Amino acid sequence: MSKKEENGESRSAILLVHCPDRKGLVAAITEFIFKNEGNIIYLDQHVDTQEKVFFMRVEWDLKNFTIPAGKIGEYFHTLIAEKFGMKWSLYFSDYTPRMAVFVSKLPHCLHDILSRWQSEQWNVRIPVIISNHTDLESVASTHGIDYHVTPDVKENKKASEQKQLEILKQYDIDFVVLARYMQILSEDFVSHYPNRIINIHHSFLPAFPGARPYHSAYERGVKIIGATSHYVTADLDSGPIIEQNVVRITHKDSVEDLIRKGRDLEKVVLSQSIWYHLKRKILVYGNRTLIFD
Amino acid sequence: MSKKEENGESRSAILLVHCPDRKGLVAAITEFIFKNEGNIIYLDQHVDTQEKVFFMRVEWDLKNFTIPAGKIGEYFHTLIAEKFGMKWSLYFSDYTPRMAVFVSKLPHCLHDILSRWQSEQWNVRIPVIISNHTDLESVASTHGIDYHVTPDVKENKKASEQKQLEILKQYDIDFVVLARYMQILSEDFVSHYPNRIINIHHSFLPAFPGARPYHSAYERGVKIIGATSHYVTADLDSGPIIEQNVVRITHKDSVEDLIRKGRDLEKVVLSQSIWYHLKRKILVYGNRTLIFD
Amino acid sequence: MSKKEENGESRSAILLVHCPDRKGLVAAITEFIFKNEGNIIYLDQHVDTQEKVFFMRVEWDLKNFTIPAGKIGEYFHTLIAEKFGMKWSLYFSDYTPRMAVFVSKLPHCLHDILSRWQSEQWNVRIPVIISNHTDLESVASTHGIDYHVTPDVKENKKASEQKQLEILKQYDIDFVVLARYMQILSEDFVSHYPNRIINIHHSFLPAFPGARPYHSAYERGVKIIGATSHYVTADLDSGPIIEQNVVRITHKDSVEDLIRKGRDLEKVVLSQSIWYHLKRKILVYGNRTLIFD
Amino acid sequence: MSKKEENGESRSAILLVHCPDRKGLVAAITEFIFKNEGNIIYLDQHVDTQEKVFFMRVEWDLKNFTIPAGKIGEYFHTLIAEKFGMKWSLYFSDYTPRMAVFVSKLPHCLHDILSRWQSEQWNVRIPVIISNHTDLESVASTHGIDYHVTPDVKENKKASEQKQLEILKQYDIDFVVLARYMQILSEDFVSHYPNRIINIHHSFLPAFPGARPYHSAYERGVKIIGATSHYVTADLDSGPIIEQNVVRITHKDSVEDLIRKGRDLEKVVLSQSIWYHLKRKILVYGNRTLIFD
Repeated sequence: MSKKEENGESRSAILLVHCPDRKGLVAAITEFIFKNEGNIIYLDQHVDTQEKVFFMRVEWDLKNFTIPAGKIGEYFHTLIAEKFGMKWSLYFSDYTPRMAVFVSKLPHCLHDILSRWQSEQWNVRIPVIISNHTDLESVASTHGIDYHVTPDVKENKKASEQKQLEILKQYDIDFVVLARYMQILSEDFVSHYPNRIINIHHSFLPAFPGARPYHSAYERGVKIIGATSHYVTADLDSGPIIEQNVVRITHKDSVEDLIRKGRDLEKVVLSQSIWYHLKRKILVYGNRTLIFD
Repeated sequence: MSKKEENGESRSAILLVHCPDRKGLVAAITEFIFKNEGNIIYLDQHVDTQEKVFFMRVEWDLKNFTIPAGKIGEYFHTLIAEKFGMKWSLYFSDYTPRMAVFVSKLPHCLHDILSRWQSEQWNVRIPVIISNHTDLESVASTHGIDYHVTPDVKENKKASEQKQLEILKQYDIDFVVLARYMQILSEDFVSHYPNRIINIHHSFLPAFPGARPYHSAYERGVKIIGATSHYVTADLDSGPIIEQNVVRITHKDSVEDLIRKGRDLEKVVLSQSIWYHLKRKILVYGNRTLIFD
Repeated sequence: MSKKEENGESRSAILLVHCPDRKGLVAAITEFIFKNEGNIIYLDQHVDTQEKVFFMRVEWDLKNFTIPAGKIGEYFHTLIAEKFGMKWSLYFSDYTPRMAVFVSKLPHCLHDILSRWQSEQWNVRIPVIISNHTDLESVASTHGIDYHVTPDVKENKKASEQKQLEILKQYDIDFVVLARYMQILSEDFVSHYPNRIINIHHSFLPAFPGARPYHSAYERGVKIIGATSHYVTADLDSGPIIEQNVVRITHKDSVEDLIRKGRDLEKVVLSQSIWYHLKRKILVYGNRTLIFD
Repeated sequence: MSKKEENGESRSAILLVHCPDRKGLVAAITEFIFKNEGNIIYLDQHVDTQEKVFFMRVEWDLKNFTIPAGKIGEYFHTLIAEKFGMKWSLYFSDYTPRMAVFVSKLPHCLHDILSRWQSEQWNVRIPVIISNHTDLESVASTHGIDYHVTPDVKENKKASEQKQLEILKQYDIDFVVLARYMQILSEDFVSHYPNRIINIHHSFLPAFPGARPYHSAYERGVKIIGATSHYVTADLDSGPIIEQNVVRITHKDSVEDLIRKGRDLEKVVLSQSIWYHLKRKILVYGNRTLIFD
């Protein structure tokens, strides 16, 4: 029995679906849930009329649901998904995902993550923090989280990533958060966690990709700066965007002011996207995300 | 044949529904559409888990739909709505609503409305503008819109409103927009157009209701000002809120600056809410709105 | 006697200054004004501590000022500016600038500009509108503004711009506004109006420069779109940014929705920057602007 | 020698002034600084033309300044302030203020404050945290900060506040931050720290003062929620506003969602206002603040 069930909260199933659009898709899925005594507590669907693709996120209460949780995927696949050529993912609200945090030297995103975790805002486990520096080791130990320093990637990137992958496996990690981790991950590394590595970039992408975006923003004389969280792909700063936010600046703001103001954006935008990920609100299609908020 | 159909665009039906929540509601409605060969192009539902109320907006293409448009309401009521105790409204995308605009002396909201109407951003007819002043008569005549000046409400509110209601009836008006119309409508007047009179209030409600909100905002020393559009009810500035927006101010801004900055909010917020209304995206429940955007 | 003076408003002088930073600059300038019986009604200064440059905008009431308006520049130059190596501009609040608007086919920015002009929000004259199309001629004629269609630039850009420059000269134009004018101006044309041509670009620059930015934004899957007004330079979409604003979008927004939402940004951002320009609140330094708001 | 001086940073003086407006005020103050070899690094002035009051914040480098720091106030008062009836405050950039934090049970604002303090974003000392509950004691001890639990105010408010005042005196506290401290301070308590107690209220004041503002916001159906930081006065939630920020909500957001989204506003708005306070950027006049940002 999960903690939520003990608390009297019920367990729900979350289904994310996409397929070519046609008539009867919503009817088929909702009928499947209804006939088996599920009570829908959230349903949002979207049709990309340009590309003629159907998307849906549906969540239903499993209390009284006649199909056992472990069999839902199989039944849904056989009875519904195959017929319509659906790609789907199924999650359960009572599973607590395991997250690893990668950091370098900057602490603000890590602090923000840990304070949410500590105050139980999120349903997540954080067994390990990985870094290329020792600076934030004490933060980890304060919170009783293991901290691993991996070899400097500049000298041997392959060895470093190999070690990181081993750690992730060892801790049975579901997804990775790069909390201002100032290293570029290789295509091979990324391929192990597709749409499961979240990065925060300190600019309003696609403006100012790469290094030192605040300096570039200052040079260009923009009046608004931003931060962008995205899933990491093999192309730097080009993965599917999850969340963005912005703040106004003026000519009075120096580069240091941009960095200071940007920190508040970065931590909130990153944490917002982690929350979306944990709540299974994100569906990635091509290089874009649908956020069922 | 409507203009849209001539253009090759298809005609769609829009259904707004709410009822006590229970299992099978989405399945029943989507099944009704699917069985009759309708293709859903938009579906959004929401469950108020606190009050246990189910809400849905669904839009489907009428091409090939087997029930004639004029019979859809009857069939839906008999086959689905009665069974579940649903309250519902049905609209068709090819009907062009008829809107009356009430103004006093300030022109910015009227200008904004007319420029959108003139450039065909909106599917709306504006046959008449009503005012308690003659100031904006030339704006109306420039656009070939009738302009009626009704008696000053201070002297005889009842007579004035009676005249206004006659005009609205004469022009077969569907809904009314108060574009900075600086008069309070009586409960009787409002009762003729429930959830069909849209007002713009020049503050971030519920802060600063009533007269001279920018002066009050200045006095209070707020750092952000706002504008609020809402459906008019018998209680002043207390009707269901449709849209709000805000802008930052500083101590350098005088009351005149607030008025200037506020104007840009007012016109955009009001026009946004007219657009929601025209697109049938608003469902009013109690004193709140659901915006299916 | 200017209209403002007739209204009892007093006339003021506005001085924009920049020079290498050193001690005593503010003291010297304010002393100059004070000694000659000027009352400062606005003063804002900024020091770029990185580049060690001093910037100031000061505005003072000319009532009782002992130096005649026509001589202020000369006196200031001789007594103050030369000593400190200042670059400066002097304006008077009672001069009404003459603005030309360039348009193509899209009307929303033009409508917004004309409604502000018509309702006397701005102290500006608009004697002429120039276009490469005839579409908006009726809008101009409604407002009693001359409308000139210049030859299609694709066939003969040089001839077209030559004609435009003649028109600007003929109407004694102070500055030009490109209100969604979908043509690129040559370096030669721009050189006639340095920091006096204001453009609105329909993206959050430097993201998505060039053509079809809303399509690009949609493709990239950004969560926020923007609009940017800037002074035009020889480099496309790279001139000094005056104002930017943004609005949130979601996966539900099609390209058409972005265009619709973007229009409201474009017109407000462009009009805001025209207001800054008219109020002499902009100081251009390098490729950046200081906005003394 | 201060830490900043050791780092090669220079020490500056910050002067906040207001007085009845008249000619020559800026000239007099800047002349005073310039004549004594001070280099102005920031100057911003504002004239309230309605009330005819002059405000200024000026900061200058003390390197080479001929008046010793300890004598600047006296000299300024005698030579300048008395003549013009100025009220003024003088601060030095190398003094590190001592701040006490009051908390109840909610940790998010405290976490945010401590993470900024720990990562040395702020020049502040936090020797003590005071609470009416023991919940956050471990957070304090983790950071090596003393934690005092004062008697429950409901039983004996006077005794509780007496104890709190003693603690503040004992730790030589300059200013107090109420980080979601859910108790109302008495007029007497507040009188000991005028404009030196900063509170965060979880609404967009003046909307929804008092208890449970998120519930009220939900009931009213607003489309935007906010947070407000202000100096505490004897009137609840009515003190001078320092900073506000807002976030959009929709009908999909439950009260719990508002609380979650609001937390991110609260912590950022509160921390922003602490930063303004530490940087001496706030001038309180009547019940309003000027933020010299």
